[in-house]
Amino acid sequence: MRATIIHGPGDIRVEDRDYPAVHLPTDAVVKVTAACVCGSDLWPYRGVKPIRRPSAIGHEFIGVIESVGADVGALREGDFVIAPFVVSCGACPQCRNGVTVACDRLAGWGGKDDAGHRIDGGQGQAVRVPLAESTLVKVPGVGEPDEALRKNLLTLSDVMATGHHAALSARVAPGRTIVVVGDGAVGLCGVLAAKRLGAGRIIAMSRHADRQAVAREFGATDIVDERGDEGVAKVRELLGGVLADSVLECVGTKESMEQALHSVRPGGALGFVGVPTGGAEIPLRYLFDKNITVSGGMAPARTYIPELLADVLAGRINPGRVFDVEMSLEEAPEAYKAMDERRAIKVLLRP
Amino acid sequence: MRATIIHGPGDIRVEDRDYPAVHLPTDAVVKVTAACVCGSDLWPYRGVKPIRRPSAIGHEFIGVIESVGADVGALREGDFVIAPFVVSCGACPQCRNGVTVACDRLAGWGGKDDAGHRIDGGQGQAVRVPLAESTLVKVPGVGEPDEALRKNLLTLSDVMATGHHAALSARVAPGRTIVVVGDGAVGLCGVLAAKRLGAGRIIAMSRHADRQAVAREFGATDIVDERGDEGVAKVRELLGGVLADSVLECVGTKESMEQALHSVRPGGALGFVGVPTGGAEIPLRYLFDKNITVSGGMAPARTYIPELLADVLAGRINPGRVFDVEMSLEEAPEAYKAMDERRAIKVLLRP
Repeated sequence: MRATIIHGPGDIRVEDRDYPAVHLPTDAVVKVTAACVCGSDLWPYRGVKPIRRPSAIGHEFIGVIESVGADVGALREGDFVIAPFVVSCGACPQCRNGVTVACDRLAGWGGKDDAGHRIDGGQGQAVRVPLAESTLVKVPGVGEPDEALRKNLLTLSDVMATGHHAALSARVAPGRTIVVVGDGAVGLCGVLAAKRLGAGRIIAMSRHADRQAVAREFGATDIVDERGDEGVAKVRELLGGVLADSVLECVGTKESMEQALHSVRPGGALGFVGVPTGGAEIPLRYLFDKNITVSGGMAPARTYIPELLADVLAGRINPGRVFDVEMSLEEAPEAYKAMDERRAIKVLLRP
Repeated sequence: MRATIIHGPGDIRVEDRDYPAVHLPTDAVVKVTAACVCGSDLWPYRGVKPIRRPSAIGHEFIGVIESVGADVGALREGDFVIAPFVVSCGACPQCRNGVTVACDRLAGWGGKDDAGHRIDGGQGQAVRVPLAESTLVKVPGVGEPDEALRKNLLTLSDVMATGHHAALSARVAPGRTIVVVGDGAVGLCGVLAAKRLGAGRIIAMSRHADRQAVAREFGATDIVDERGDEGVAKVRELLGGVLADSVLECVGTKESMEQALHSVRPGGALGFVGVPTGGAEIPLRYLFDKNITVSGGMAPARTYIPELLADVLAGRINPGRVFDVEMSLEEAPEAYKAMDERRAIKVLLRP
């Protein structure tokens, strides 16, 4: 089969790999019908995160079950499934607490399972899925989704679940005022998640016309393109002299974290889902003096998918709008380039 | 009148001061019937917080209204009142959001009001209270409380409100498992607050028999006297292999913050109310990797007093149990010494 392999910074290749098979009785093999490139895939691509050896890459995909191991009772050949961005067991204390991203048997696509077997990356034609029953979410009543539904379902793998996590972490609730820092796919999904949870005013911080347009579609009531102190002043002005009740940080840099923190009102909450990089920190004394709540981390997508899926299937949310470019799997190198150069918000890959 | 003045580290004196009077139409004068020494009063006493000039000290008191300014409609001579540990206006956005400790007109006992007038400290015979109507809470139906009630009411000024803030910040809820780091009056009130909010297992970390006894009375189901990694291991053992859902940090040092942070399970919450000192910080990446929520700061006592007062008056909580020593106001120097040397949990002063 064909699969995307990262060899080094800027070096993405689509290569031949063995077609996956069921190794363990809890495995399934999924034929991938759509995958995509994540903002976090750009960290190794840009050399920010080191690459030790050529590795299969990609952690967002949807597809059809081709075969299952003997212990996989709830899934069968032909089922349409969403893969969350990590593998989880569903049985350990962390999974039972809903924090599937801290699973005792956590494994990542392109890595190894806890038995030491290689796992395929998501940007390929097929994937062996360990712990398939607890990891995958079956989409009921769907044979082959149409193009719009396919995009919506694919966002549940990561970005929409992550935007939802940012919103929950920031304590978004009906009537609260919101600022979203970051206009990538996650930030845009954060806007949509905030709207879905009943937020009142939603301010998206964005400087790109195409992203501003999606933010507005998703429910942003205001766009702020100023940054730093000017950005904070603009937020305060828009909200009648007060800062925001809830701020969603969806980037992870030092600058974005400061922008986010300084946009929270005393007693408000900051939800952060951008992987902290470049020295992003939060001074404890600032939190203490302002009574600010900080919450976030990797989204437990597996926990959130069922409720988000219900809204997608009912047509209540259309997060798939974040995909502005589609390419074939063979064009994966170009997909990375387009995302890296910000020519695309998010690229969908067709294997 | 007699009032407690701090002159320098270890130098507490009770001196004569002018009896306070109403200066502004929003003022009231309160005759103090009970005051006390706070753990945070020990910071300047120990020289950790610098003292520039002799200053009136004390920020927890209850008493009787002696006179009111023309604009104080809801309070009158003879009313029995609780003073929260800061002055707040009740009208600014922060007060309306319930975050009275971030009030636009915030002032502290022993400091100055926003008109530049000196405010008396709480450890004295009488206090001029600025913004009296929004700051003080009237205790309905109480003339002169009996000894037990007096102690209970005095805790609402700070320590019980602060313990409650720690519990709310740590997302205590029915059935959740709790660890409380710190066995001072605030930590003990944190135990009581967690119990009041319906917590299941409550583990108090304490090495002092007298404090352990109060913790048990307040609802602690377990006592852990180990510290560091051993303390964390003990918590994990008591909770069946998992860390705590909610951890209350009630000290503020680097060590206590680490103890608290490392006691939180993935997806759990840390509520902190100890003023951060000695380099206490929280690494953002740790929060991200564990999906831990951090929340806290100064307690908005003014916001919490009404609901806590209802429970005190109904006999449902007895936080006054934290006072293990009573002294006359003249003995204030000895009260500080007893608290500093940990011979007393909390000293009540009778003016």
